[in-house]
Amino acid sequence: MEALRCLPGVGPKGAQRMAYHLLQHDKPGAQRLAAALARALESIRRCAKCNSFTEEALCALCASPRRDAAQLCVVETPADLLMMEQTLAYSGLYFVLMGRLSPLDGIGPKEIGLDVLQRRALDGVVKEVIVATNFTNEGEATAHYIGEMFKERELKVTRIARGIPVGGELEYVDSGTLAQALAERRPV
Amino acid sequence: MEALRCLPGVGPKGAQRMAYHLLQHDKPGAQRLAAALARALESIRRCAKCNSFTEEALCALCASPRRDAAQLCVVETPADLLMMEQTLAYSGLYFVLMGRLSPLDGIGPKEIGLDVLQRRALDGVVKEVIVATNFTNEGEATAHYIGEMFKERELKVTRIARGIPVGGELEYVDSGTLAQALAERRPV
Repeated sequence: MEALRCLPGVGPKGAQRMAYHLLQHDKPGAQRLAAALARALESIRRCAKCNSFTEEALCALCASPRRDAAQLCVVETPADLLMMEQTLAYSGLYFVLMGRLSPLDGIGPKEIGLDVLQRRALDGVVKEVIVATNFTNEGEATAHYIGEMFKERELKVTRIARGIPVGGELEYVDSGTLAQALAERRPV
Repeated sequence: MEALRCLPGVGPKGAQRMAYHLLQHDKPGAQRLAAALARALESIRRCAKCNSFTEEALCALCASPRRDAAQLCVVETPADLLMMEQTLAYSGLYFVLMGRLSPLDGIGPKEIGLDVLQRRALDGVVKEVIVATNFTNEGEATAHYIGEMFKERELKVTRIARGIPVGGELEYVDSGTLAQALAERRPV
């Protein structure tokens, strides 16, 4: 039970339920889980190009010849990468920071590999860096830092749009978002 | 009880509770409500300039000399107007459609006063029409129609931005919005 508590969202009760369930009703499941965890811990490493999780030296995306190498999308986490892929709207490559700037927690540019990103983006092939960090304070600070980093370079740096969600109605949108959407209005 | 059912969101049970509450515990409240409704029905009319509700010929916003008459924000409802005002980010004037294009329901350009809007926006003072209709199908169709309407005129037509809300995290945003935010990315 104590060991299961390391899973996110699992409290004492949940851990207890899980432990008894595995021991009473699903011993093979517990064995598979133990083996899968051990195997993952051993074989999963970071992609040499995008810093995401992979079992090979290069992840499937970075290794694919069908992706557009001129676009590099910077995301905070592998989960965000997955979200971008699910839109089916992006065909470029990625760079995963595995975090965000957060000076209060001692997370600076080095800790999230912004120096690695700089070398990666200036390889001569990348033409556009698309910053897709979250629209939280830390995500915005990270985006700002990345923008400054490539300021004097021959590189287009863009930020995904802020505004009102698809299907969104003004009446139910918070006023901060509405103010942003107004400030960033664009010609029809 | 039957009469209270005309209020939005009030079902049979709610109407019953309201009716008994007013009669048993709050007769003065019921009297005030009856008087307020009667007074409102008598004195509330449409602003001659923006089409919103008002008790005068012109609403307080249209009559104010402190508003920027060069900007005209088009919204669907008075509630949307109120939302825009709450952002404290807009100082121009409004035009309230009191609806949206919805051909299936028989609501065409005339029904939401787009001809009135055209005359209003071409008064020579208005320099920019900011379309702030909802990002629903009908709202988007209405925005498109307004854009076409002023296409050949000396008038800037803008649309409030679509994208990821303030504070939004990629992981929790729907993929349609993320795809839009990607498509409408802008230089940092």
